[in-house]
Amino acid sequence: MALQTERVSRVMDAARKQGIAQILVTDPLSIFYLVERITEPMERFFGLLLAQDKAPVLFANELFGMEPVDGCAFVKLTDNDDVCALLAEHIDPEQVLGVDKNLPARVLVPLMASGAAPAVELGSFAVDGAREIKDAREQELMRRASATNDACMAEFAALVHEGATEREIASQLEDIYCAHGAEGHSFPPIVSFGANAADPHHSPDDTRLKPGDVVLFDVGCRQEGYCSDMTRTFFWGEPSDETARIYDVVRAANEAAEAVVRPGARFCDIDAAARDLIAEAGYGPYFTHRLGHQIGLGEHEPGDVSAVHDEPVRPGMIFSIEPGIYLPGKTGVRIEDLVLVTEDGCEVLNSYSKEPRRLDA
Amino acid sequence: MALQTERVSRVMDAARKQGIAQILVTDPLSIFYLVERITEPMERFFGLLLAQDKAPVLFANELFGMEPVDGCAFVKLTDNDDVCALLAEHIDPEQVLGVDKNLPARVLVPLMASGAAPAVELGSFAVDGAREIKDAREQELMRRASATNDACMAEFAALVHEGATEREIASQLEDIYCAHGAEGHSFPPIVSFGANAADPHHSPDDTRLKPGDVVLFDVGCRQEGYCSDMTRTFFWGEPSDETARIYDVVRAANEAAEAVVRPGARFCDIDAAARDLIAEAGYGPYFTHRLGHQIGLGEHEPGDVSAVHDEPVRPGMIFSIEPGIYLPGKTGVRIEDLVLVTEDGCEVLNSYSKEPRRLDA
Repeated sequence: MALQTERVSRVMDAARKQGIAQILVTDPLSIFYLVERITEPMERFFGLLLAQDKAPVLFANELFGMEPVDGCAFVKLTDNDDVCALLAEHIDPEQVLGVDKNLPARVLVPLMASGAAPAVELGSFAVDGAREIKDAREQELMRRASATNDACMAEFAALVHEGATEREIASQLEDIYCAHGAEGHSFPPIVSFGANAADPHHSPDDTRLKPGDVVLFDVGCRQEGYCSDMTRTFFWGEPSDETARIYDVVRAANEAAEAVVRPGARFCDIDAAARDLIAEAGYGPYFTHRLGHQIGLGEHEPGDVSAVHDEPVRPGMIFSIEPGIYLPGKTGVRIEDLVLVTEDGCEVLNSYSKEPRRLDA
Repeated sequence: MALQTERVSRVMDAARKQGIAQILVTDPLSIFYLVERITEPMERFFGLLLAQDKAPVLFANELFGMEPVDGCAFVKLTDNDDVCALLAEHIDPEQVLGVDKNLPARVLVPLMASGAAPAVELGSFAVDGAREIKDAREQELMRRASATNDACMAEFAALVHEGATEREIASQLEDIYCAHGAEGHSFPPIVSFGANAADPHHSPDDTRLKPGDVVLFDVGCRQEGYCSDMTRTFFWGEPSDETARIYDVVRAANEAAEAVVRPGARFCDIDAAARDLIAEAGYGPYFTHRLGHQIGLGEHEPGDVSAVHDEPVRPGMIFSIEPGIYLPGKTGVRIEDLVLVTEDGCEVLNSYSKEPRRLDA
């Protein structure tokens, strides 16, 4: 548990190329990535200041109970401290300050107004860019988190029974993840029955399962800090012809997109591989979101798999492929895997079956 | 479910007094307070632009599935939109823009750099100031949420048994809250046994209960949008003399602070009433945090009850009174109620007993 000097160097190299000599990192996951310390700071301040040719400085409230990091200066804050004044002692006002995209205005506005950081630019591209490319250890942790998700999906499917409510099922998932060695959910789980599956962001409620419903699980766990994320859609009873048809279209779209992932393919090409197939089947307007998102320490990391992201993918990137078709008031299907870009293609991190399946059978 | 015109007027009056003619509100709870729409936007944008003599403008991603609000303009965003460019169409660049304290740099920095909002100040004091004073309806909802918390604390205490783990107990709380009509936790529950109670922010883990331990519950629910928050510390088996002693000191500190709450008393005076008593008992260095925080739609709202906050409290404010003594490696005690400032004193919203109690008896 220590300063990750190689990662810090990669970040500062990227920053230097953009003319930024100092960066204030405040995304807790980015701080964990760089110095292996983490907390959920709530409204308190938690930050890591990186500057060329200086030791990093970690700022943490004493309430976090955090140990110092070898190789880092450590500024312990109390609830009565003026955070901006303490930051000002370490920021060079003559240099542009790169700030994290998440830095809240309550810190940023006084930093600028007080003259502590008169020139500010977004600097998190440097950390985000480093985090985008998972190193060998991170790839292994991502494989493990997805293997847990695969194993748990089988148990989740077994929980489903006639008359169950979404909330009842959803409340049982975390214990199963923990029994498999995960720390918990990586995001609030989505469990949707029937027409509720037409809302991609549905929150589990008291809806009861009935014959003819789909059962959609969009779930993930956090394990050793890294996130998994997978969606499977099952049937309860005989699906309608339309539900069966959109299932096949979504599955084909998922597989078509996964088939084109390789270094050099652009995010937008991957999105198009799924989207075009759904459009050709006549459901274009019913696939209402981007195809996927990057993932790692965060469950959503910057770099969408979408029509407007025209960068090529690179080895070590990990993102979701999650096409869906949503028929409001009727039904919805989404099928999602995580994929890791390799030297010559991709490794699909999820192996849970995508064959159509009736859970009542 | 509509525009709260009286609340919007209060906010804009406060802003005008500070010379701010337009405010971008992005705290989801503040948006709920003003227009009764809410979502957890994650990395997507959700904002409400208020300007003198213009209709408010609500910006929401289409994925939120949100209905427009009567009396508000509505800008539906997609994942492919340039949010800053769309905001720029509605912001007057000739006027200072008040921004929410939570506005992330990823929106704020481009807004400033693009010239859309060249002059920015923190503007959330106006909304926060309005939210600080709970109106009659809000007071009633806060009473209800705390009554639920009182009722549930009795059930939580009954869950405790020899050999139970903190995690096991913590995982059962949310269902109990929901059975009592709450939407769920207002914050991740703290359940601490024995020496774990010496960490005010302990996360429930696999520690097993054993005789002589304290059992600390710091828990709250969200009900009809409003938050409760209460701490009680119980004993399992005979407490050590020191544990029994610090219990009495903390309880006395809690009651001493509650006794001085009335309009005109300053937050720092209330903090001192508890802190001085703990210091006199010789435990000053072991009470390591502020006495309390305001609460309402948010589980922590701006305006600490602390030594550095010298404003007087006003009728309609609601905050926690939560002194604690933490003996590292040994034990900890915290006792917390919510109080509502009335015209001539305060109403303690929690009625759950503070008598010392052995749960094994």
